[in-house]
Parts: sequence; structure tokens; C-alpha cells
Amino acid sequence: MIEMPPSIQTRVTKLFGIKYPIIQAGMVWTSGANLAIASANAGILGLVGAGSMTPELLRDQIRKTRERAQGAWGVNLPVFNRLADEFVKIILAEKVPVVFTSGGSPKKYTGVFKKAGAKVAHVTPNPSLAKKCEEAGVDAVVVEGFEAGGHDGRDELTTMVLVPQARDLVKIPLIAAGGIADGRQMAAAFALGAEGVQVGSRLAASAEASCHENFKQAIVQAGETDTFLTLKKIMPVRILKNPFYKKVEEAEARCAGQEEISQLLGRGRSKLGMFEGDVVEGELEIGQVAGMIREVLPVAEIVRRMVLEFQGTMQQLKNGV
Amino acid sequence: MIEMPPSIQTRVTKLFGIKYPIIQAGMVWTSGANLAIASANAGILGLVGAGSMTPELLRDQIRKTRERAQGAWGVNLPVFNRLADEFVKIILAEKVPVVFTSGGSPKKYTGVFKKAGAKVAHVTPNPSLAKKCEEAGVDAVVVEGFEAGGHDGRDELTTMVLVPQARDLVKIPLIAAGGIADGRQMAAAFALGAEGVQVGSRLAASAEASCHENFKQAIVQAGETDTFLTLKKIMPVRILKNPFYKKVEEAEARCAGQEEISQLLGRGRSKLGMFEGDVVEGELEIGQVAGMIREVLPVAEIVRRMVLEFQGTMQQLKNGV
Repeated sequence: MIEMPPSIQTRVTKLFGIKYPIIQAGMVWTSGANLAIASANAGILGLVGAGSMTPELLRDQIRKTRERAQGAWGVNLPVFNRLADEFVKIILAEKVPVVFTSGGSPKKYTGVFKKAGAKVAHVTPNPSLAKKCEEAGVDAVVVEGFEAGGHDGRDELTTMVLVPQARDLVKIPLIAAGGIADGRQMAAAFALGAEGVQVGSRLAASAEASCHENFKQAIVQAGETDTFLTLKKIMPVRILKNPFYKKVEEAEARCAGQEEISQLLGRGRSKLGMFEGDVVEGELEIGQVAGMIREVLPVAEIVRRMVLEFQGTMQQLKNGV
Repeated sequence: MIEMPPSIQTRVTKLFGIKYPIIQAGMVWTSGANLAIASANAGILGLVGAGSMTPELLRDQIRKTRERAQGAWGVNLPVFNRLADEFVKIILAEKVPVVFTSGGSPKKYTGVFKKAGAKVAHVTPNPSLAKKCEEAGVDAVVVEGFEAGGHDGRDELTTMVLVPQARDLVKIPLIAAGGIADGRQMAAAFALGAEGVQVGSRLAASAEASCHENFKQAIVQAGETDTFLTLKKIMPVRILKNPFYKKVEEAEARCAGQEEISQLLGRGRSKLGMFEGDVVEGELEIGQVAGMIREVLPVAEIVRRMVLEFQGTMQQLKNGV
């Protein structure tokens, strides 16, 4: 049993009823019930990621999470997903207490989830879109910087520039995402005006993540410059620079059309990489912080280290300057 | 006379003999003697930027700065500049006390400047290159993130991800650059492990910067998504999205060759924009923080606000979490 540090309370922890102001990000092929349960039990918000699931699997994972989570949990729903309407029905039927929506308009589903009594947050890459989230009635907004893994905004705003501008525009609780894998980065996000952080990559390389062990090891082995934002013609996505990435880069360098690149990408490329463990031909979505991740750890240990380093950083800033 | 806040001492302030741990960045067509003098007199390190000068002008600006600066100052030298060797002779002959080198190997000139008794720092975009700077014998290293204006590294590491990794690799004083225009961002840089910050864009929009008033107004008017890292085939540079930028983007979108893009860029494009004030056809180098800059201010007022906000942020973090 890992001994956990004392609670850190902010508007974000009060909103979701969590011990630490940390959200486990929804990640395709990675954030199943096991990760959400481990996160909830470690005192952070656990999210089941609907993005790569069938409706049946989502229902199953929600039920499993409810049964075993001893803390706050919810679902992450990508609004642009072709099954989004079906996912919404399940989320409502299962009375999921927290929903994080992402990748589309916050207007689309916020009302229906709020009406059902859920807490709602939306993930967005721009300060002005954060304001639109607030206007749409969300309880909290996540602003996600260019350094984040997976799908990113087209404007390439980094967390450093994004968070303070969003802070100046919205009054609701603000959560920073992108480039946050340790307690120093968490403290930096707080300095910028965030009241919580959403952590993806660091929790992908956890014992409880559902992604393949080969993918976890690829994260651990990644160096400081081993991710890149690519596939800009289809939908920008940050991935590991593996042989599949090199094929995409080659095609993009010679200005291959959207059709050719779509064909090269094919279907199931992210499942192949992240879930089936083909780190050569698969698409491996991960953030720039991959270069900082040195080992696969249990979620509770990741949270413990991050919180302790956050508190240590705060103490150091207080004494040192 | 602006009343300035109390001093903030770190290893960076001690190294350069400054009141606040802030470096005014060298910027082409922008950082002449007037900006360096105003910076030195406001308690931060002022740097004359050699990049866009003739050797004669550099000598003149160094002498003017020495005569009127009542604080620490130096020169920024882009190592890749075709006149670099001539600049070095002048810097040595004029016994410039501080030299910031950038954009090339730190090995090239560090030894000669150190031997002459100057303090030397090098600007770099990668943690492992920061380590190489330390090995080359510099007194301090600046790590500059993807969000910075002007020429950026090809690996696109953001300040949030870059600074803590550099901190883990080097023992010498560490300065963060890229995305730092206010005191919250300065506090974030400190949380990440920096002991000082280098500020460009915010000081380009100052009364004392030598760039054209039209350029300063273009910065003030820029919105949150109005810069982009472009010209990747030649040398990646972050610029304002003006009509010239749109021509480059159009050419790059249809995969125009390096030669065609070089021809489109032509000669004197940055002088045309930043110094002569043609904000339509000129190249306007500026950072992502342009969207946060609302008015042109005197350097001393910019420094005063940044330091006060930095101290306020520290206080808030101390009380709030």
C-alpha cells in the first residue's frame, strides 16, 4: 500500500470530489475501466475513454468502473466520434456522474448531460473557444496545448501561452493539459492560472493502462525529440516517430494528397500500434513529455510522486525567490 | 520616474549583476542601443542584437550603450550570421562584458569570449544541446521553446517540456525563453526550474525598441492565433500571419521547392517588415504571446508590471494551495 500525501484542495477538486487536482485524460486504447478505477482510487478523477470503444464495451467498462472505483470517475466522449450519439444514450442510461467532452462543439451535448445531473467539462485548444465552453454552460474547461499527445488543435498554441489567456477570459474552473508529466509542470500550470491539470502520457505508461506493453515500453524508450505533430492534412495528431510516422512524413514532404495519406493511414492503425503492440507499423499517440518518462509505474505511485514534487516545487519557490 | 519593485536575486542576477532575473532578447531590427540602454536602466540585462547590423553599426551601438547604460548590458551574436567573425572582432575590441550567442555551435566562440573575460550564454532549443553548451564552458544557458518568435528549432519542443528536461541535465544557471510575456509565465518558468527568463516579443512592443511603429501596432493588434512557425524548408521562423505569410503558406501547401520559396522570401524581407514598417509585404518575426500584448509601453513599465505580477503569483501560489 502506497502512502499518499495530504490533499490539495482547489475549485477543481471541490467540483469533482477528488483529493488532488488531477484528471486522468481519456486516451484511445489506453483508458479503460482499469485505468479509471486506479485513478479514482489514487484520489484523482478517472475517465473511461469512449473514443476507441464499441457502445457495448463502453457500457461494460462504465459498470465495471462504478462497481470498483472508490473515488470520482466519469467518461470522456469525443464529440466528433461517429458513434457519439449512441455513447450519449449509454452515458445517460448509466447515469455517469462526470462527462468530459472533446473535439467538437461544447454546445452539442452539454445541455443534455447537465439536465441529467452530470458535471460537464469540455476540452479545447484556444482561449476564445474556452470562453465559448463557458457560455455553453460547462462546469469546467480544459485547455490543451500543442505539446499534448493525440489530436491537437490547428493553431498550435502551447500550454504556456494558452493557459493565462484562457484564465483572463473565463471565470469557471480551468484545467491545463499538454506537457504535464511531473510536479514541476503541474506547479507551472498553477502559476499560469490553472486550478487543475489533465495528465495523459504519464498515465499511459502506467501498469493499469489498457494499451499494449510494447507501446508502454516505446514511451519509456522515447528520447526528448521523439514525437511530432503530423497528419495535418487529415486531423493533426502528435505521435511517436516510428517507421509508420516516417512513411507519413515522406508522403507529406512530397505533398501527397489527402486521399493518399488517408489510404496510407488506413483503418485500425492506432489500434494496431497502441492496443495490439505493433510499434513499427502502428500509430502511437503520445505527448512531447514522452522523453521525460523513464519507467512504467502503478497509477498511485505516479500520482504520489507528482503531488510530492508539486508541493516541493511550491515550497522551493516560496523559499528561493 | 517609475517606481520599481524590490530586487529578485537568483544565480542569473548574480552572474550578470542585474536587479531582476530577466534578459532582454536580441531581436533583428528591434534591439538596438536604445532598447539595451532602457533594459539595463530598468534593472534587467540589455542586449544589443548584432543579427541585423553592419559591423560599423554594431560598433556604434555598443559604444552608445556603454556610454548611457547604468546597468548590465551585452551583445547577442547569431553564430550562423555571415558576418559573425567580423562581429566577434568588434565585440572583443570593445571589451563587451556579456555575450549571448545563438543559432549554431556553442563551441565556436565561447572559448574566445571567455578568454577575453566576458560572461557567455548560449541559446538552444533542446535539452541535450543545453548539456553541450555546459560542456562548451558557457556561464549560463538559455533554452528557447517552440512558442518563441523568430528562428526556432526543428524539434518543436515547447517551453513547458524543454525547461524541466534541461534542468535535469545541466548544473549551470538556466534561463527560459519562449512564451514569456507576463509575470505568471515568468513564475511558471521558475516552477519548471529556470532561474531567469529571456523576454523578446513583449519588449519588441516597447517605446524604446528600434523596430517600426507599424510593426509594434501589428503586435498590439494580433489575436491569439495570429502567429505561425513557417518557412520550415529554409529555416523555421515564427511570424505574424500577414499577407506575406499567406503567400508563403500557399507556396508551402502546394509543395513549392526550396528555391521558389527562397525567391519568394527574397532579400531584406524582415527589414522591410520590422524596420521599414511594411506590415503587408514584410516578414514580421514575433512569438505566440503577441496575442497577449495590448499596448506599446516603456521598457521600465513592462519590467515593473512583470516583476509585480511575478511576485503576486508567487504569493498567490503560497497562500492558495
